[in-house]
Amino acid sequence: MELWFSEYQTKNVKLSFRVTDVIYTKQSEYQYISVFDTEDFGRVLALDDTVMLTTKDEFIYHEMISHIPLLTHGNAAKVLVIGGGDGGTVREILKHPVKEINLVEIDHEVIETSKKYFPAVSCGLSDPRVKIFCEDGIEFVKKHSGYDVIIIDSTDPIGPAVGLFSSQFYKNVFEALNDDGIMVAQTETPILFGDLIKRIYTDMSATFPYTNLYSAVIPTYPGAFWTFTMGSKSINPISQEISDIPFLETKYYSRELHKSYFVLPPFVKDIISK
Amino acid sequence: MELWFSEYQTKNVKLSFRVTDVIYTKQSEYQYISVFDTEDFGRVLALDDTVMLTTKDEFIYHEMISHIPLLTHGNAAKVLVIGGGDGGTVREILKHPVKEINLVEIDHEVIETSKKYFPAVSCGLSDPRVKIFCEDGIEFVKKHSGYDVIIIDSTDPIGPAVGLFSSQFYKNVFEALNDDGIMVAQTETPILFGDLIKRIYTDMSATFPYTNLYSAVIPTYPGAFWTFTMGSKSINPISQEISDIPFLETKYYSRELHKSYFVLPPFVKDIISK
Repeated sequence: MELWFSEYQTKNVKLSFRVTDVIYTKQSEYQYISVFDTEDFGRVLALDDTVMLTTKDEFIYHEMISHIPLLTHGNAAKVLVIGGGDGGTVREILKHPVKEINLVEIDHEVIETSKKYFPAVSCGLSDPRVKIFCEDGIEFVKKHSGYDVIIIDSTDPIGPAVGLFSSQFYKNVFEALNDDGIMVAQTETPILFGDLIKRIYTDMSATFPYTNLYSAVIPTYPGAFWTFTMGSKSINPISQEISDIPFLETKYYSRELHKSYFVLPPFVKDIISK
Repeated sequence: MELWFSEYQTKNVKLSFRVTDVIYTKQSEYQYISVFDTEDFGRVLALDDTVMLTTKDEFIYHEMISHIPLLTHGNAAKVLVIGGGDGGTVREILKHPVKEINLVEIDHEVIETSKKYFPAVSCGLSDPRVKIFCEDGIEFVKKHSGYDVIIIDSTDPIGPAVGLFSSQFYKNVFEALNDDGIMVAQTETPILFGDLIKRIYTDMSATFPYTNLYSAVIPTYPGAFWTFTMGSKSINPISQEISDIPFLETKYYSRELHKSYFVLPPFVKDIISK
């Protein structure tokens, strides 16, 4: 029996993986969770039939969403992650000398699923520095503050995550950050969603003195050329000195490229400046 | 009627595009050529059901396979392209002050197809500096020499292109190059084909004093994280001074990143040094 999982990356593009084993499926309060093993990309976590992570390439996304803001800040003690219930981002943050991580994941089933089926991804969730809140991140940032770095490790801007891509949300995040605070959000691909990236960049720029895009290749995400948008209250990421960056054990992130990640290809510059 | 084109990127991964129009199909002497329009990636050229280019993202591949070796050389007059019958690589080379380009494409049907259906890609093929040879590139390099840069713009290492990934071929290319000559080949993705990349790197290093990998994101190629391997007879690409690089009109390649392209993520360094 041939089993395939297909994700509609857009209405018109599908990426399909041959499935060797369906491990777990569950309809949670918020989304349809599935875990399955594939021949080429290892184990996959999908939410509403959208790939969140594969054990083959998750390191790229998790390293890039964490190390860039944390190393740009240079001295983060308290970090907030919104979304990210799989724990991959927390695992990477724990490579830094932080004091406290708050993880706000709306769906506790995602956390349980990752703990059970993705031990190498969720391993940091039991660290004593990590406090988990199963709440809506949009409400959470209105009531909490004092963060050095806030990471928006969300699903795509449809369904429950829509509010995480709004200009009011960026304002609330700004208020929840310390004076030298930095936020970063995963912001999709310029290959397919240029208009969205332009809107996010414009909205974040209206609130933060420094707004910068950086990118990474994520083979299993639509368009593969993935962006992150970073807002900073007082630190200019472009003036970060390479010599100040401590060594981290990573597989994709490279210290030598820290500044280069912020240099955008001309076609992406065109999108955000048009 | 829903029409989809699916490419088996491996036996276990498929990328599919919704097709709005099938424009042209032909079984040539060497391969099955198809041209079709898609909703999200524009017009596509496929050979044996493998995507060669889409009008949406072809600029990335063609810029990166051309500008990196040409700018590293700095003064190329005579350039050889093996494969590349669509003309995209030639179009980019013509942005440099070269005197002569030889294009050796085994399948003249690819050239005719591109001229007819991809005018914005094939536009350089009628330039008076371009000489087209419809021959086997493997034999061609044994009989011709005097090139400053040789670009191997081949299909995947199956079928007619196998010989273009062999150590004897790299030796012949070395002989066909001038003393400061540079070759580059498209060399697939480390996400899925690490062993192949390691073998190419080892083979090319055995012949060329300087062998360097660089990468680019190509959304419609397997794994999307694409590599190019460059062999140089006397110029060390890493010592290239940024200030020496002239401005080129590009959409992906960025002068500022010229040196950064050669900095590999740790997981790729591991693959070639293991």
